[in-house]
Amino acid sequence: MSNVLVLGHKNPDTDSICSSIAYATLKDKLGEQAEPVRLGELNEESKYALKYFQTKAPRMISGVSEETERVILVDHNEKQQSAIDIDKVKVIEVIDHHRIANFETSEPIYYRAEPVGCTATIIYKLFLENNVTVEKNVAGLMLSAIISDTLLFKSPTTTNQDIEIGKELAKIAKVELEDYGLSMLEAGTNYSDKSMEELVELDSKDFNLSGKRVKVSQINVVNPAEILRNQEEIKQVLKKNTEKQSLNLSILMITDILNSNSIILAFGEDYKAIEYAFNVTFEQNLVLLEGVVSRKKQMVPQLTKAFEALQ
Amino acid sequence: MSNVLVLGHKNPDTDSICSSIAYATLKDKLGEQAEPVRLGELNEESKYALKYFQTKAPRMISGVSEETERVILVDHNEKQQSAIDIDKVKVIEVIDHHRIANFETSEPIYYRAEPVGCTATIIYKLFLENNVTVEKNVAGLMLSAIISDTLLFKSPTTTNQDIEIGKELAKIAKVELEDYGLSMLEAGTNYSDKSMEELVELDSKDFNLSGKRVKVSQINVVNPAEILRNQEEIKQVLKKNTEKQSLNLSILMITDILNSNSIILAFGEDYKAIEYAFNVTFEQNLVLLEGVVSRKKQMVPQLTKAFEALQ
Ligand SMILES: [Mn+2]
Ligand SMILES: [Mn+2]
Repeated sequence: MSNVLVLGHKNPDTDSICSSIAYATLKDKLGEQAEPVRLGELNEESKYALKYFQTKAPRMISGVSEETERVILVDHNEKQQSAIDIDKVKVIEVIDHHRIANFETSEPIYYRAEPVGCTATIIYKLFLENNVTVEKNVAGLMLSAIISDTLLFKSPTTTNQDIEIGKELAKIAKVELEDYGLSMLEAGTNYSDKSMEELVELDSKDFNLSGKRVKVSQINVVNPAEILRNQEEIKQVLKKNTEKQSLNLSILMITDILNSNSIILAFGEDYKAIEYAFNVTFEQNLVLLEGVVSRKKQMVPQLTKAFEALQ
Repeated sequence: MSNVLVLGHKNPDTDSICSSIAYATLKDKLGEQAEPVRLGELNEESKYALKYFQTKAPRMISGVSEETERVILVDHNEKQQSAIDIDKVKVIEVIDHHRIANFETSEPIYYRAEPVGCTATIIYKLFLENNVTVEKNVAGLMLSAIISDTLLFKSPTTTNQDIEIGKELAKIAKVELEDYGLSMLEAGTNYSDKSMEELVELDSKDFNLSGKRVKVSQINVVNPAEILRNQEEIKQVLKKNTEKQSLNLSILMITDILNSNSIILAFGEDYKAIEYAFNVTFEQNLVLLEGVVSRKKQMVPQLTKAFEALQ
């Protein structure tokens, strides 16, 4: 039988990369062969974490069905965020912290979702439940995932579990949490070698929300003005994506990780749903949302409800 | 804020009844108010278990949305198996051991599914993980659920975890596992006061399998011949259900719990899917399937594949 592959979502973020490595490590220690893989390029933040904790990146693949019959999904479950041929293989486990949608099995599986800030938080609990010791570098990678997903505990998705487990992992990884976290997040805001097209694609997820096709991209920045210099070019990318992919709405959240707010650039006739959801008005496809930093918790549910209300 | 309700599936079986009680007990001990409820009449087996372990039946309700805004699902997740107005409330947790389908949330939730024989097996693990002591009667109810779902460990859905946890629970509940189990299962095969209509409805679940509307009912018996005396009447009930509910296929599994096989009565033009799946031929709407006792593991996935193949 072929190896089980452990994969995070398309356009992988640090949680998808590090959780696939950590969970494959746990599986190996439990005597079940599993290989972490990734569905796209590493971002600068993930590169920083992998280098710091001296770990090889997961192998990059484009499809799963020619490699294996069995996969484990981490950090996602929605079909359109997974491998393009995910329907051709058997999903045997899911470890995730997102809403559940566009996901169906014909047989019972192991599905572990918890409303915590990061998949790695759940995976650390699974190490404990299985009495498996967490080694320094794996601890560092799980810590990196938690820092990334919670923006160093500033995101409203943060739970006490993320904070407590983050602190424990920092001890095992032998790093000073705040220092390491800021350095890693800052490394992630370096987009200097990216085209605007790549910038929008980098951390972009597709959703079906109340029947609407919506793409929500997000980038973390420490200086929004720098990105906004290119706003015309970004709008052109959003416009092109909307037309080419027949989207109802294409959004880029430019999230200021120091001041905890997001500038929203949007294109597509359904931009009115954002205005409805947050009681704001776009000017030249642009609006500031105070306090909004989480796509999962502060954008997707609100848009879902707005689309329902406007139907 | 209103109480959280903990509910099992429609036409509740012993797992749905006992797991809702056990999980509400755990929640209470963790300081979160929760009330177990049920969506239908108790079967004879559940009555036996509740009486033996001196526990009040969960309150029966018909809908959830007038009672609460928040529910926890145990032993099911598919919408059509849940409360009729389930879309009007928020599902905040799911504890289950079935396939995942027709289930979607707009926000992250706690979802704990494991491919084990019984929901109560998972709930016992949650007691342990949360360091909460299991009391005698609750242990007895969880044991009853495991015996019921695994047919005293004879069903192919049984895992080592079910067996080990079952033995532990029997100790806490102070019963001899085999003796208690056989008595409880036998109590469940008493259908003397049931009409054929009630018999078919008793443990019946609706599925959407590869686009087909399928109802799969199941009854456990120790003497199939007794039930088969009424086969003409049962066929009439299946026929009526098929027409009235626009089903593609309506199935009754008459499961011989001593000899581990099932006689299948089926109605609906898509009965050919059963013939294809098991390489058998119906005679007068009836066929014997050797070794088949589990709807979840030996009927639903096989039919799903057959429907796909025959499309
Ligand atoms: Mn994540
Ligand atoms: Mn069950």
